[in-house]
Amino acid sequence: MNKKINLGKKHFSSETIKRLSLYLRNSKRLKSQGVDVISSDKLTELLNVTPEQFRKDLSCFGGFGKRGVGYNVERLIDEIESILGVNQQWDIVLVGTGKLGSALLGFEGFSQFNIKIKYAFDSDESKVGKSRGGVKIDSIKNMKRIIKSENIKIALISTPPDVAQEVASKLVDSGIKSILNFAPRILNLPEDVLVSNVDMASELESLIFFAKQK
Amino acid sequence: MNKKINLGKKHFSSETIKRLSLYLRNSKRLKSQGVDVISSDKLTELLNVTPEQFRKDLSCFGGFGKRGVGYNVERLIDEIESILGVNQQWDIVLVGTGKLGSALLGFEGFSQFNIKIKYAFDSDESKVGKSRGGVKIDSIKNMKRIIKSENIKIALISTPPDVAQEVASKLVDSGIKSILNFAPRILNLPEDVLVSNVDMASELESLIFFAKQK
Repeated sequence: MNKKINLGKKHFSSETIKRLSLYLRNSKRLKSQGVDVISSDKLTELLNVTPEQFRKDLSCFGGFGKRGVGYNVERLIDEIESILGVNQQWDIVLVGTGKLGSALLGFEGFSQFNIKIKYAFDSDESKVGKSRGGVKIDSIKNMKRIIKSENIKIALISTPPDVAQEVASKLVDSGIKSILNFAPRILNLPEDVLVSNVDMASELESLIFFAKQK
Repeated sequence: MNKKINLGKKHFSSETIKRLSLYLRNSKRLKSQGVDVISSDKLTELLNVTPEQFRKDLSCFGGFGKRGVGYNVERLIDEIESILGVNQQWDIVLVGTGKLGSALLGFEGFSQFNIKIKYAFDSDESKVGKSRGGVKIDSIKNMKRIIKSENIKIALISTPPDVAQEVASKLVDSGIKSILNFAPRILNLPEDVLVSNVDMASELESLIFFAKQK
């Protein structure tokens, strides 16, 4: 869960996007409770975000609430989903089908974000042709060609650390723009590629280190 | 995996600690390959960290390599484990035993960091007394007393978002110093508490948002 985000010259920050995610989650929760219209005060009170911040975030994307009237919850959901892009299906690729990669291939949580792992690649030819979580494993030799021809933009890396950089560079060469990296390795990539690092080990070690100081 | 770290007035950064985690992982890998002595160049070449950075990081903690001689791999592991605190056992608590909390209680990966979830708490009295992953669920009413008497410093939060702040504040009141928060909610806590946020949903939505811009 170690985190590094390069957002290049975009005028919105990664923190704005995280907050949009929170607004979306909260709006869905309210909708499920039968709420139709909500004030910015009510929507943000559980999020530790100020109503002002909420309105500012939405205004970055054209602002679609009416002051004093509140937000139509359903429309808010539609708009945020549309801003985030989660209203369309995203085919992604996964590289590295070891223990963690296999777990990710079996993870059912991706579908709620309209994410589908369409291709999985491995350098171990003995795995090629086998299936994990309904996805057939392809040879890494075909990776670049497939990503280009299918115009895929998002990749998960779950390789051993010593090949993660090489794999990441190849992914970027193939046209990948967003990477979620589960390998415990810091990746050096161009500024216009978004890299999120998920590293449970270093997260836990940081917690321990910090607890130890007390 | 959304990340917020407050390190208060400590003179080392959370990034230093993350790098120490990487050095530790790499040193263990080298040891398993039968390597006894390693240069800072070799140790860092797979990590995208410069040898200078490595030596600087270690020097923050008293520096224990010899220039020109290299590092004894076993000693390096011992020293980094000692710095991080992972050479001793850490009993931690978990709050919220729903779907995610139950998965965490069953997660076997904690033991490699000498982490043991010793207590799990829930506000749902119908769950109290039941076991998940070998841990008996206790009432949240007993949380403060147990954390204090057992002198526990680390907690995982896997509650629903609307109670996460309340739970976190109670944890801090009880003496908790490091929190790994899986609830999709931004926590407001004192500066001297380390909070790491793990939010797969907002991570994935950020990836999609960024891919969409291309």
